[in-house]
Amino acid sequence: MSENPQDKKLLVEVCISPQLYPVYQRANSIVVVIDIFRATSAICTAFQYGVEKMIPVASLEKAAEYKSKGFLVGAERNGMALPGYDFGNSPYGYMTDSIRGKTIVISTTNGTQAIEAAHKAQEVVIGSFLNFSAICAWLKTQNKEVILLCSGWKNRFNMEDMLFAGAVADQLSDAPDYKLGDAALAAKYLFQSAQKNPYRMLHGSSHKERLSKLGLKADIKYCLSLDKTGIIPVLKDGFLVKMG
Amino acid sequence: MSENPQDKKLLVEVCISPQLYPVYQRANSIVVVIDIFRATSAICTAFQYGVEKMIPVASLEKAAEYKSKGFLVGAERNGMALPGYDFGNSPYGYMTDSIRGKTIVISTTNGTQAIEAAHKAQEVVIGSFLNFSAICAWLKTQNKEVILLCSGWKNRFNMEDMLFAGAVADQLSDAPDYKLGDAALAAKYLFQSAQKNPYRMLHGSSHKERLSKLGLKADIKYCLSLDKTGIIPVLKDGFLVKMG
Repeated sequence: MSENPQDKKLLVEVCISPQLYPVYQRANSIVVVIDIFRATSAICTAFQYGVEKMIPVASLEKAAEYKSKGFLVGAERNGMALPGYDFGNSPYGYMTDSIRGKTIVISTTNGTQAIEAAHKAQEVVIGSFLNFSAICAWLKTQNKEVILLCSGWKNRFNMEDMLFAGAVADQLSDAPDYKLGDAALAAKYLFQSAQKNPYRMLHGSSHKERLSKLGLKADIKYCLSLDKTGIIPVLKDGFLVKMG
Repeated sequence: MSENPQDKKLLVEVCISPQLYPVYQRANSIVVVIDIFRATSAICTAFQYGVEKMIPVASLEKAAEYKSKGFLVGAERNGMALPGYDFGNSPYGYMTDSIRGKTIVISTTNGTQAIEAAHKAQEVVIGSFLNFSAICAWLKTQNKEVILLCSGWKNRFNMEDMLFAGAVADQLSDAPDYKLGDAALAAKYLFQSAQKNPYRMLHGSSHKERLSKLGLKADIKYCLSLDKTGIIPVLKDGFLVKMG
């Protein structure tokens, strides 16, 4: 039997794609779903503006079904809000008091696919730079293994999700109870070298370029801003609700 | 139509797991298979010592079949050479003149799985620090897209393969014809921050720890040494042979 105290530590892993989630899943892990540009940033913003529940759905068929039943629905594919729906995945779309107390269905290119991949995990929470400190502080109280699940872009690695994962890994690695898996270690190093200027590292990254072309530079800037809310959205029986 | 000259550049991507290869595969790409600890390092070493052909097989069933037919076979699982076979995946095992002109079958935990995943690609070559400069120089003459396929550890991200991918991405990004995908960009940044001391970044990485526990520190050091050979092993009809 190993006597290495490292073996008793809680593993923090980064999974860079929803498609790899089955490889990383472990019983009792907390999964933090990350889609910085822009689903998880939009979801955090919606809760900050008082939405009561959100229903994440992976398919547009499901989104259309909810729409036909009279639900408010946000739908995005390939960076664009889809016509005929109430919202896209721009956080700015959710900055309105009219969503207070409402239930909103949301379906996006990447983020809701990641939520779907992880939905059977013991606990699934929504992370973004907008609730960064709240997520980190809460994780440290849980004494559980952590999987930082990057939504990526169509199952590919993307830079901004990895940077956020690295920011969280960096925080957790300061706590004595955690050890970082290789992807978390890499994410932490990436974050540390980006720390002085995340814009520099995102320069040339695919999704930032994609959103810039779509005229969404304000969204990019907002999604990289820290701690706009203390709310942690959490998945309960298929609904995202405010934790606590 | 876009007029962005970036769009005409050749994409360099890093795929961090054989399981994600289907997401990254593109027609006409060159795939560089990477398993630093230790399959691709061992394969490069075998060619340096004059092996004529290697037959990479993913399953142990296949390896046993070849063994029963009288072939020389290298077989490794979980870092250990399997009993009853002629080699494991330590490069040191292949440093013998007795392999000159021979055909050797090889099956490993990760590397041969990656070769199997990519075997239908137009061109599959074997990369390691041991043939780093040869690989980079050759890629630059090819005018093709490049997928740097990390074997990882049981389909998980691992640090040493990502660092090698970053070293190659760093070289290619100096050439005007290439653009880096997000994972290649991240790998390049990682490599750059590790450059002064790759040992530091590997400290705490899972596979280095695993091999250290198995008493394989000399292997680790050798697998991180640069340019021991100018040979590029290439996959032709299921056989690895010396390019050119």
